[in-house]
Amino acid sequence: MIAVLRLGHRIGRDKRITTHVALVARAFGADKIIIETQDKQIEKNIRSISERFGGKFEIETGIDRKKLIKKWKGIIVHLTMYGQRFDEAITKIDKNKDILIIIGAEKVPPEIYQVSDYNISVGNQPHSEVAALALFLDRFTNGKWTEKQFKGKIEILPCDNGKKVVSVEE
Amino acid sequence: MIAVLRLGHRIGRDKRITTHVALVARAFGADKIIIETQDKQIEKNIRSISERFGGKFEIETGIDRKKLIKKWKGIIVHLTMYGQRFDEAITKIDKNKDILIIIGAEKVPPEIYQVSDYNISVGNQPHSEVAALALFLDRFTNGKWTEKQFKGKIEILPCDNGKKVVSVEE
Repeated sequence: MIAVLRLGHRIGRDKRITTHVALVARAFGADKIIIETQDKQIEKNIRSISERFGGKFEIETGIDRKKLIKKWKGIIVHLTMYGQRFDEAITKIDKNKDILIIIGAEKVPPEIYQVSDYNISVGNQPHSEVAALALFLDRFTNGKWTEKQFKGKIEILPCDNGKKVVSVEE
Repeated sequence: MIAVLRLGHRIGRDKRITTHVALVARAFGADKIIIETQDKQIEKNIRSISERFGGKFEIETGIDRKKLIKKWKGIIVHLTMYGQRFDEAITKIDKNKDILIIIGAEKVPPEIYQVSDYNISVGNQPHSEVAALALFLDRFTNGKWTEKQFKGKIEILPCDNGKKVVSVEE
């Protein structure tokens, strides 16, 4: 189980970035996105995409962060530009265990650095939590997402020019 | 020269996503971001980050897309969820030429598919132009960004726990 926890999501302001985080989690091999703040609209959007484009992907919003972290039995990874190098860190993570990947919005509380088994940086330059999550999942799963079959009602086929979309009606 | 062209940026609505696109371009090895719509605020923000965190990175906003594309002497790559597989496509691109990577916002006009030498998808699932650009640059440059020295006034050093920041005063 690969779960992503998005901290400090502010409804309105963070809507688009958090949506990108959730879609990246789904496309690159995570099983679940958990958003700290309750946001029914994002739940609806992500469920609708998963239903149409296939695959199993869960979303939960409005959770107690401290309880979730306390209960978590697997590894906790916090993605931060201040962390250790991701290429080196990834080799140390036990892949047989469940993993919770924590992604902050603005400022991340110091306790997150403490409770995480690994504070990992995807480069030490300022860029984007969306990109950091994509690159982390890509390396962590050895690029397995490139071969994943989603078997959705809508399937987009690779195409040199234009659009090839297969829609399965029920 | 690796340049990124961000199409259809809407001031206000796209501010944060376009900022992420620009920062990802910079962090993962592009030399320049070009934003179709004029946006002095984004220019200022990205220049300020480049000045503090180092490296050479240019930003230009408010350009005539058709003229730019017509003048472009190198390869044009358009990133789209409808394109051909990126892992296969990347091996065909001539890396000795300049490359212009086009990233849309909402709907991309059909002419972009026509003028591009390659329409490339980073997975055929809906996710994020931020993630698509990061993964494309990562593979295109063979992960060279992980070793790049930016030599900025601010340097963040990899760290297991907490923050290690080196500031060089002038």
